[in-house]
Amino acid sequence: MFHGKHQPGITTALQARGHLVAFDLAAGAGRKEAAALLRRWSATAQRLMAGEAAANGDTDVARDAGPSSLTVTFGFGHSFFARTGLEKQRPIALDPLPDFSSDHLDKARSNGDLWVQIGANDALVAFHALRAIQKDAGQAARVRWQMNGFNRSPGATSHPMTARNLMGQIDGTRNPKPSESDFDQRIFVPDAGDPSWMAGGSYAVVRRIRMLLDDWEKLSVKDQEDVIGRRKSDGAPLSGGTETTEMDLEKTDADGKLVVPINAHARITRPDENGGAAMLRRPFSFHDGFDADGVPDAGLLFVCWQADPLRGFVPVQRKLDRGDALSTFIRHEASGLFAVPGGAAKGEYVGQKLLEG
Amino acid sequence: MFHGKHQPGITTALQARGHLVAFDLAAGAGRKEAAALLRRWSATAQRLMAGEAAANGDTDVARDAGPSSLTVTFGFGHSFFARTGLEKQRPIALDPLPDFSSDHLDKARSNGDLWVQIGANDALVAFHALRAIQKDAGQAARVRWQMNGFNRSPGATSHPMTARNLMGQIDGTRNPKPSESDFDQRIFVPDAGDPSWMAGGSYAVVRRIRMLLDDWEKLSVKDQEDVIGRRKSDGAPLSGGTETTEMDLEKTDADGKLVVPINAHARITRPDENGGAAMLRRPFSFHDGFDADGVPDAGLLFVCWQADPLRGFVPVQRKLDRGDALSTFIRHEASGLFAVPGGAAKGEYVGQKLLEG
Repeated sequence: MFHGKHQPGITTALQARGHLVAFDLAAGAGRKEAAALLRRWSATAQRLMAGEAAANGDTDVARDAGPSSLTVTFGFGHSFFARTGLEKQRPIALDPLPDFSSDHLDKARSNGDLWVQIGANDALVAFHALRAIQKDAGQAARVRWQMNGFNRSPGATSHPMTARNLMGQIDGTRNPKPSESDFDQRIFVPDAGDPSWMAGGSYAVVRRIRMLLDDWEKLSVKDQEDVIGRRKSDGAPLSGGTETTEMDLEKTDADGKLVVPINAHARITRPDENGGAAMLRRPFSFHDGFDADGVPDAGLLFVCWQADPLRGFVPVQRKLDRGDALSTFIRHEASGLFAVPGGAAKGEYVGQKLLEG
Repeated sequence: MFHGKHQPGITTALQARGHLVAFDLAAGAGRKEAAALLRRWSATAQRLMAGEAAANGDTDVARDAGPSSLTVTFGFGHSFFARTGLEKQRPIALDPLPDFSSDHLDKARSNGDLWVQIGANDALVAFHALRAIQKDAGQAARVRWQMNGFNRSPGATSHPMTARNLMGQIDGTRNPKPSESDFDQRIFVPDAGDPSWMAGGSYAVVRRIRMLLDDWEKLSVKDQEDVIGRRKSDGAPLSGGTETTEMDLEKTDADGKLVVPINAHARITRPDENGGAAMLRRPFSFHDGFDADGVPDAGLLFVCWQADPLRGFVPVQRKLDRGDALSTFIRHEASGLFAVPGGAAKGEYVGQKLLEG
């Protein structure tokens, strides 16, 4: 469903294929052109998510294939607001993220005026949507960066379960669930939120996290488990139980040593260790081939969603930056922070409250 | 099935995800190291295709997921034979392909001593296999080039049909079918073939074909159909009927003009116009992001199979090179030609007849 209180692609089940793409407005394009663009984009997203052809010359690449769980999600970056004369509408939450010591960020692949997330369970359907979105941009905006990702295909596992990442680790066990009473409050800007055009919206933090897989795979499974704090086979805490068992942070072994090491990734990222900070992680894995030395250019397109990045991503990343055992095996290579407005009502387009407010 | 008369991945139904990877033997590695490597690779392929973990330190990336139609296929390039002192065993069919005027080949992404094709319906399963194959290579061989591709996901279409490519065109209608009486003869080297170690094998031609999609998408559907010679909606010949109807090459319109233009791609590539040449095309689409100017780096990882490239790929490509209307919209950027031996019997490894013959 394209229409609704929230945009699609936030609480939607992970799709097998994803495209992230950022656009910069063209020189000379301002608020008027941006409004027209968001109107075109919303119309295209609505059509394609309904399994219809694009209105303006469809490429037929997705013909004969259903929408395949397609979602298209739109966001605004910090730089968008000055370019459109809307500085006063810029959320404080879009203030640049602090620097982290583990950052090796490529500015050309970071941020951007506009951001689009596309997900689908079929790669041709996803590519088709990406090209339609790019065509809609026309002369108003040009691609700044674009990344491809993937997740488990539906049916590849015999029973639904939490996804694994390219380190082989079950990833997302502690994600907040829509059934939890404070889910909306943590993930979405409230109806009376500030700025008002962000009501029902959310903030997306995007990080291209390269995994240093050659180093990681040299570790024994035991050492990998100590880095994460969970069993690799089933994701259960090292303190025992099953994947969803509460982690016993105080448990010690016969020698009095903490069973979940003090710098284990799962210990540091626990919400109750971070003032209740919570974010909804909804990543894609990526693999863009090998570097010349045979090292895989692979890892995680980390996308997380929260009502306020300063209470979600930032405090957790600060703690990780200081003492996470996992940090040796990853490198943040690109970063983006985007304000993703609420969903459009019928007859409206995404961002209309901002652009015509 | 890993074992059998032919290797898997040749007549196997198209998978949603594919990796092509070429390796060069390391300096100092020869026939002995190559034999040990093919033995390791065969053991790994057999295990992973059965849904088992790799023997030598599995990464767990495919854990909980079935084999997902995984296939792993091994081939030898022209340069392999001199490096291993096996020049006398080198098939004439591996002689370098002629140059074509439309070639813009990147040598670093072409050919190679060894070639592995991996396909699966789940991207993590495919990546898992790729890493296991790379790990097996150890000190014996290093990655020369590697490419990722994709096809329709199972279930994305409501009824099974011929795949579409990123031009939106139905692609593969005229592919030979295993049910045809001369299929084996056209695709596989016969039992009494030359050299004898290639019995049951096939030759793979690999071309990275960039599609100039910005130009292509500027054409009207009518003009696109004239380039191909088939209707875009359903793949039927412009002379009428349905996708599988024979093309009427002589049919003219009211003005006496050929309905299927003289330079239409489907006319030029028809086997009965090419001395019966036939190849089994089994491609993957690719999309490696956008160039800096917003042009998609996308197209077709063309893989075709034949008993003899000089009777399959070469004559067709020669004709295309001279007068194909499609050539304006594509660019061959990399090329490989590989001898893919027959399947291994139980207890044997792929290429054993060559390496221990």
